[in-house]
Amino acid sequence: MQITQMASMAKAAGIQLAALPTERKDAALAAISEALQQNRQRIIDANQKDMAQAQSTGLDKPMLKRLLFDEQKIAQVCQGIKDLIRLPDPVGRTLYAIELDQGLELYKVSCPIGVIGVVFESRPDALVQISTLCLKSGNAVILKGGSEAAMTNQVLAEVIADASIQAGMPTGWIQLLHTRQEVSQILALDRFIDLIIPRGSNQFVRYIMEHTRIPVLGHADGVCHVYIHQAADLQKAIRILIDSKCQYVAVCNAAEKCLIDQAIAAQVLPQIRSALESHGVEIRGCQRTCSIIPCSPASEQDWYIEYLDYIITIKVVDGLDQAIEHINTYGSHHTDAIVTEDRPAAARFLQMVDSADVFWNCSTRFSDGYRYGLGAEVGISTSKIHARGPVGLEGLVIYKWKLIGDGHIVAPYCGPQAKAFTHRILNRDCPL
Amino acid sequence: MQITQMASMAKAAGIQLAALPTERKDAALAAISEALQQNRQRIIDANQKDMAQAQSTGLDKPMLKRLLFDEQKIAQVCQGIKDLIRLPDPVGRTLYAIELDQGLELYKVSCPIGVIGVVFESRPDALVQISTLCLKSGNAVILKGGSEAAMTNQVLAEVIADASIQAGMPTGWIQLLHTRQEVSQILALDRFIDLIIPRGSNQFVRYIMEHTRIPVLGHADGVCHVYIHQAADLQKAIRILIDSKCQYVAVCNAAEKCLIDQAIAAQVLPQIRSALESHGVEIRGCQRTCSIIPCSPASEQDWYIEYLDYIITIKVVDGLDQAIEHINTYGSHHTDAIVTEDRPAAARFLQMVDSADVFWNCSTRFSDGYRYGLGAEVGISTSKIHARGPVGLEGLVIYKWKLIGDGHIVAPYCGPQAKAFTHRILNRDCPL
Repeated sequence: MQITQMASMAKAAGIQLAALPTERKDAALAAISEALQQNRQRIIDANQKDMAQAQSTGLDKPMLKRLLFDEQKIAQVCQGIKDLIRLPDPVGRTLYAIELDQGLELYKVSCPIGVIGVVFESRPDALVQISTLCLKSGNAVILKGGSEAAMTNQVLAEVIADASIQAGMPTGWIQLLHTRQEVSQILALDRFIDLIIPRGSNQFVRYIMEHTRIPVLGHADGVCHVYIHQAADLQKAIRILIDSKCQYVAVCNAAEKCLIDQAIAAQVLPQIRSALESHGVEIRGCQRTCSIIPCSPASEQDWYIEYLDYIITIKVVDGLDQAIEHINTYGSHHTDAIVTEDRPAAARFLQMVDSADVFWNCSTRFSDGYRYGLGAEVGISTSKIHARGPVGLEGLVIYKWKLIGDGHIVAPYCGPQAKAFTHRILNRDCPL
Repeated sequence: MQITQMASMAKAAGIQLAALPTERKDAALAAISEALQQNRQRIIDANQKDMAQAQSTGLDKPMLKRLLFDEQKIAQVCQGIKDLIRLPDPVGRTLYAIELDQGLELYKVSCPIGVIGVVFESRPDALVQISTLCLKSGNAVILKGGSEAAMTNQVLAEVIADASIQAGMPTGWIQLLHTRQEVSQILALDRFIDLIIPRGSNQFVRYIMEHTRIPVLGHADGVCHVYIHQAADLQKAIRILIDSKCQYVAVCNAAEKCLIDQAIAAQVLPQIRSALESHGVEIRGCQRTCSIIPCSPASEQDWYIEYLDYIITIKVVDGLDQAIEHINTYGSHHTDAIVTEDRPAAARFLQMVDSADVFWNCSTRFSDGYRYGLGAEVGISTSKIHARGPVGLEGLVIYKWKLIGDGHIVAPYCGPQAKAFTHRILNRDCPL
């Protein structure tokens, strides 16, 4: 099938999905979960072929770990689907209602976005997770996984499609692409695809962002800062810095940079150094840092880099305003924290740091949909429109305006004798 | 000044603006309104030079009318600013608050988007309107108007910048570009510009949309439909069709197409024809239409065209589903109406027509921010994310997540002995 034809089928399926009631979608989700369990041997067999192939081509260990899709992973994704079924339907909510005039009522109602393109690297669980999130929110989905997981993804997509279509979902709502060339093609299909969600490494996400005009929900880098203000409680500061840096280094919300006020630098840097080094963290420092503690000098490039490793760059700053400016210039607008006991300083930091997540006296690692209580995480966005930070199901919906009249026309409301609108807020849901 | 430098200044000014209290912004808006009045002779003089130049180059009458900026237009934009001052500040609203655990509270708070790029054609009032909307919502703005209004725009931008900066707004929050070349340059500055709002003809908007990766808030076409369902009240149908088509033909929410159910076509088409023709509307029809009433045959292209003129294309459809499919295929996802007394048919139409505004028994011409009671209209969007349909000030804001702790770290919430989150909804505003 041609890619354009697949995308056009997805668009048509999306229109059908938009009109389905919650119960029907939830029943399809339950059917998917059951089918994944029933087909688990088939899935595991396919995955073992992918694994064998990957080992023979010398894929590194972390990649192999992400590629593995075993009994435990199947149980995990099925649990995820059960949790998703319990979440409220994000579609069909009346967000605002107003009477324009007698008998003429306007309702702003949430609805699916349409067709979501999802491009992800090795992890096959991303396929299950994102496609079920799309189904719950009434969106059609076009998926492309990493080629190293091709056989696993093929079986997963087939199982999900078969089970959901049997449960009454429209044919074509889920489509799997197979080649890199097809990815380039879908990135150009802004006529059919309304949103792209890329899941994978920062280089990968940046590639997607730079090669499409379709809106992208996601983030390339997580260059997160912990700023230790001169009025910081030092014990809190060290605890937060160590957790932010070391609790899990390979993730986007781990701290990569530490800023410290000049006024306290000489006093606190030695303790910070010993705490970091006891956790095996390599320190790179600005000139002032290097004059206080022994460490390797940071290059200009260091301030932009997401290490995802036991490395941190430390900069001594003149004070709050320089810290804010540094973060806004070098950061990735993901998650940044201030440690201070000075409330006005914290307020200023939270207001002026231009990041999705701005924290006071807590670890950057809290920046996560599950921890935020969103129930399901679609992704973490550093975009400035639509959805920002950890995004739950609400990131997969938009709204439409429904206006209900009884023969109303605009002419009487125009001109010198114009009738006035009542513009009376209504406290009720859209009746249709 | 280099464009990149201007954009970088705007970015820095935007950060400052984000932290300003409502009173300061409103005071600056009042100062702008006063300065426009005080400088009205200077503005009118500049505009007369633009008008003389435009007449000498043979600009057509509608363009000249849009270019004119006289005493009355100044009074209008000043009234607009007064109305804007009275609107609530869209920034700093707590949209959601949740306790993650004791002493660890998360707040989702609305904030400005950052830097808005506005590209508009001849109307100088667009400059005043959009820049003041940006100021109210805490955004910096980079403007480029039509070259035919260059002198008027220069004076307006100077007056607005001077008055607002004297009133304490950050230098560089409003910037005016002067050449087409500069527009191409800003379209590439996605590092500094967060959103583009184009105002002008459909070709112009489409050009912008196709030449930038910055998100665009707007619409290219308004190919709006009135669908007369077989259960329509014919008198309502004719009234709504005439208002939608003729009340003001040159606007994006005017109807360009009419669909009529096969079951009633033979009966109603003659009456519709006579009503349309009495308003001077040329009819182009599908084959079935042409077999019932005398009219010129529509080409395939006709179904896509926004005439903005006294022309309409009529198609006879088999029924509701064909009408929905036709609108979703050929329409521009702007505003589409159904006329029917059949409630389930209306519900299905409103749910499955993939447009920003879907209407039942009323004119497409209601699709407008003022009529919707939004207070101020930023534009009408046919985008599928962020903001859709008529967009008020809320389209110029996004949100950030503020997490307030007291030394909280992630480690205790991880692993087999993980502490549980409380995830208790809070009914209070963010304290910072």
